Amino acid sequence: MLTEHPSAAPDLDTLTARAAALDNADPLAHTRERFLLPEGVVYLDGNSLGALPAAVPAALEDAVHRQWGTDLIRSWNGNGWWEAPARTGDALGRLIGAAPGQVVAGDTTSVQLFNTLLAAARLRPGRRLLLTDPDHFPTDQYIADSVGRLLGLEVRRVPAREAAAVLAAESGNVAVAAYAPVDYRTGGLHDMAALTTAAHEAGALMHWDLCHAAGALPVQLDALQADFAVGCGYKYLSGGPGAPAFAYIARRHQQDFDHPLTGWHGHAEPFAMSGTYTPAEGIGRARISTPPLLSLLALEAALTAFDGVEMTAVRDKSLSLTGFFLECADALLDGLGFTVATPRDPKRRGSQVALRHPEAYPLVAALTARGVIGDMRAPDLLRFGFNALYVTHAEVLHAVRELQAVVTSGAHRAPEFQERPTVT
Amino acid sequence: MLTEHPSAAPDLDTLTARAAALDNADPLAHTRERFLLPEGVVYLDGNSLGALPAAVPAALEDAVHRQWGTDLIRSWNGNGWWEAPARTGDALGRLIGAAPGQVVAGDTTSVQLFNTLLAAARLRPGRRLLLTDPDHFPTDQYIADSVGRLLGLEVRRVPAREAAAVLAAESGNVAVAAYAPVDYRTGGLHDMAALTTAAHEAGALMHWDLCHAAGALPVQLDALQADFAVGCGYKYLSGGPGAPAFAYIARRHQQDFDHPLTGWHGHAEPFAMSGTYTPAEGIGRARISTPPLLSLLALEAALTAFDGVEMTAVRDKSLSLTGFFLECADALLDGLGFTVATPRDPKRRGSQVALRHPEAYPLVAALTARGVIGDMRAPDLLRFGFNALYVTHAEVLHAVRELQAVVTSGAHRAPEFQERPTVT
Repeated sequence: MLTEHPSAAPDLDTLTARAAALDNADPLAHTRERFLLPEGVVYLDGNSLGALPAAVPAALEDAVHRQWGTDLIRSWNGNGWWEAPARTGDALGRLIGAAPGQVVAGDTTSVQLFNTLLAAARLRPGRRLLLTDPDHFPTDQYIADSVGRLLGLEVRRVPAREAAAVLAAESGNVAVAAYAPVDYRTGGLHDMAALTTAAHEAGALMHWDLCHAAGALPVQLDALQADFAVGCGYKYLSGGPGAPAFAYIARRHQQDFDHPLTGWHGHAEPFAMSGTYTPAEGIGRARISTPPLLSLLALEAALTAFDGVEMTAVRDKSLSLTGFFLECADALLDGLGFTVATPRDPKRRGSQVALRHPEAYPLVAALTARGVIGDMRAPDLLRFGFNALYVTHAEVLHAVRELQAVVTSGAHRAPEFQERPTVT
Repeated sequence: MLTEHPSAAPDLDTLTARAAALDNADPLAHTRERFLLPEGVVYLDGNSLGALPAAVPAALEDAVHRQWGTDLIRSWNGNGWWEAPARTGDALGRLIGAAPGQVVAGDTTSVQLFNTLLAAARLRPGRRLLLTDPDHFPTDQYIADSVGRLLGLEVRRVPAREAAAVLAAESGNVAVAAYAPVDYRTGGLHDMAALTTAAHEAGALMHWDLCHAAGALPVQLDALQADFAVGCGYKYLSGGPGAPAFAYIARRHQQDFDHPLTGWHGHAEPFAMSGTYTPAEGIGRARISTPPLLSLLALEAALTAFDGVEMTAVRDKSLSLTGFFLECADALLDGLGFTVATPRDPKRRGSQVALRHPEAYPLVAALTARGVIGDMRAPDLLRFGFNALYVTHAEVLHAVRELQAVVTSGAHRAPEFQERPTVT
């Protein structure tokens, strides 16, 4: 049984009326027009790849034809290319509670993870432990292992809920604790403030991976006194496929930020072309190399979809969407083999809902064929992500109804939905 | 005196006729139409940022609107996003003498340098020396220092012309020799075969930075038995500002390629989401993370400008352009304070010509204002790069005539050309 309150399950008319009422009262209804959404699609995979913001095509057209094609090399000065990583970093900073001058955009999450995690560990010499989450996204674990191997640290995998206790027990031994606020599979939300405090009480540095949090919920890096953070640009920030990642380096650590990826863009005097690395002051030293400008300028344009939007409003809408999804699922999917993997407590929920079902893959494939796009994670998770800027409650209800229709009709058992493609 | 043969200096009419004859006989004249060049500009800075290939705008339009905007997450399978790094790598491979399955595109040159240089050094455990060039591009030196620090290697800076002797003297001690075939300042060309052989005779691995060679001249990585190489996509390959870089890993090293940037895209089963890194077979393990697809698809489209073009033809044209530039400079710039920094021997010349002049910066600035774009490197180098696919001999003559006009008129001494911008 899916629902915790079966007797209270509303009927379809009630849900339809609820969706309409919620959408009518939605203070973020106007931001949907900031995206170019395909017709006939309900897109609940913005936690993998955000939809196309309406500002992007014109920005890219300008970047290609005028900036690259006509102005050519002169664009580094004339069109602000040199400043783009820090400028975009500051725009990102507003969404994650970072004052200007602490975020730089560029490279990929894996690269930013490696660079900041290794630099963080160097700030705690003599400490032999690097804590990370066994439920962390794979890259985070692989990179932690790589950093540990290079620096001779033990990488210990401790679940987020146990991390505070281990930090207390190993106080003085832990160099860095590297966690994510949102579990990428279940959407479960950890207490960033508690874990950051626990790390600091143990004398360790706190490193956050914000891939599933940035643009999805309020993050207050400065207020938390977080030390380092990274994240990607292509999920809730809707910066485009493989959009540049970002790194946050708290101002108090910048002067001592001693990183391995010492590219010339992070040099104090890059055009002196010195053979010896002298890092730039401030966040500039976290720049690595010539950034992929077409992708970076697309990300910068995409961020304008957040103009005038407070992250608290995003959070309210997001919780309304995920809460309504659970309400619809309780009402319409009960007895159909699903369980809910995502915490029902709003305080413990990110901006996605994950359901478990033994036929997760064919169900997602069949749903996609009907224009409702979510995704799956092996072995049995159906994931639905909710971008508060463009998803409506009516779409949520539609998605759950389609899922109900698929599973009750057995449509997902058709042969075309059985063969798993290489990428999902 | 600039020229070595002052009595043979041709007059302007002769040079004009020579330019026309050379352009009329140019087998690559047709490839100029594969680029969208701004009117009124002679672009001799393709060694910093290549011009816009005509195939790019439509490819990006499709990538943005259809692939991202409409197909959304389905593009990973349906539009071949997953295969893009290896597919683009193979297209690059043709231009650098690498059989398919040995090149991957993505990330930046600095990142690829770090990843491959560190992996290369791990293949020679117990050897304590990493050789690199004191005239190497700054990033190459910084990253070598970073790798040396992490692995406990001594980084010794040995000029390319002395490297073979040092390799012989330190045989058994050198893990990796990391060099570039083309000096980014002077355009001087080193003997790749001789240096690669010297490295191998010392039991070391040879690592090449092809930033100023790929797309500019024939490179035969497989035939040379080079071990590793990296390069950028935005110079002679014209892949766009900050276009993704590439890494070459010779097939014989792939099974043992043990790199630090273990992102999930290089995993044997990325979608199993395992917490332990198991590298993919073959070049796939050199993939790191989600690539910046807009920039990557632009690079892939840009490479079609080389369709049907052999690198030997590029080299012939390039030497004709650089040789003619020197011929024009000898005839028109003699006695005006210039010296030639680039070797006159074609076998020792890349695809650029560098002149020295004490007023290099204002001269380049004044030239740019007249529509002739080159660049400068501190303190006194004027650099002119020649992309054989789109530069004509008539443009070469025009550029030298403009330079002559600037320097003889003193136009470069105007106030607006004195203030150096932050980026040049």
